Amino acid sequence: MSVTMFNFIGGDRGAWRVAEMRIVCGASLAAVAAVEIVPGNLVVEPSGVGWILRGATSNHRYTTRAEKNALNHRQAGLSRPPATCAALIPIRKSAAWWELAQDERREILETRSKHIEIGLKYLPEIARRLHHSRDFGEEFDFLTWFEYAPADARKFEELVCALRETEEWHYVEREIDVRLARDKF
Amino acid sequence: MSVTMFNFIGGDRGAWRVAEMRIVCGASLAAVAAVEIVPGNLVVEPSGVGWILRGATSNHRYTTRAEKNALNHRQAGLSRPPATCAALIPIRKSAAWWELAQDERREILETRSKHIEIGLKYLPEIARRLHHSRDFGEEFDFLTWFEYAPADARKFEELVCALRETEEWHYVEREIDVRLARDKF
Repeated sequence: MSVTMFNFIGGDRGAWRVAEMRIVCGASLAAVAAVEIVPGNLVVEPSGVGWILRGATSNHRYTTRAEKNALNHRQAGLSRPPATCAALIPIRKSAAWWELAQDERREILETRSKHIEIGLKYLPEIARRLHHSRDFGEEFDFLTWFEYAPADARKFEELVCALRETEEWHYVEREIDVRLARDKF
Repeated sequence: MSVTMFNFIGGDRGAWRVAEMRIVCGASLAAVAAVEIVPGNLVVEPSGVGWILRGATSNHRYTTRAEKNALNHRQAGLSRPPATCAALIPIRKSAAWWELAQDERREILETRSKHIEIGLKYLPEIARRLHHSRDFGEEFDFLTWFEYAPADARKFEELVCALRETEEWHYVEREIDVRLARDKF
């Protein structure tokens, strides 16, 4: 899995317009009208924007070979023409989560919370990309990005509700749910 | 485990002078006389230096609770007055390693290569700090840093030799071994 940095720039302009922004828990994030996604390191930081959230795709931290094969088999790529709905959900987990050992985090994330199994149920309709931010000293640990067709909006609600009810989510101390839409590609 | 960025600046000046620099495998790194370690993000990159390697401390990726407790119980901190010897060993692993799933990497790293168990045998004499670099798009994946007293230099040789003989090391495609010394603190 190769590493690519992505910048999510919230401001007045961007390919994705903000349909709704909800503070799930923790400190708020400035309201913006649109989000632009820019890969790579920004040579110059744009001025006059509300926020820039950075994260990098990286190797999976918890997925077993069997789970990875199932994900690879079922998942769809981003930028599918019918997928004009998206969600950007930045998440920060507590210090208690990060103090856990690898086996304890895996136990909570999958054995008890079924995080990977739940996500698999919604493939290929809900396409996803996970960005890691914590090691950059960012204010969130992860930026999760989802794309889906308007007809699958209810399925997406089910997915996020199911995850928020898990034991893993007890460790989420900040979460913003930004829903977006774009014109057809 | 909190995240802190560190910059290893190789150049003419620094608290640690280079005693020896050896290319273990892969592309070389410019020869320098000294290394200075600077925490945090560099506001201005110093000019006229040989190289700057960046990495962040982060949560452990493989350690179980039992192993983490054993490490915490035995390990010593950095900057102990008698520990005037150090090694900076930047490592890059192959794409094949990063394509493995979490359970496959754990199996190779610990079950078959005993990476954590080997390190434990040399505590508290050999103090260590691991820095993650891969997600920053750096040329190395990890920067490993070790400190020990001159009297423990042979033990340190045993440790690095034992690790280099493991199956895990088949996935190391670039490794530089920089040995350093400093005056008493």
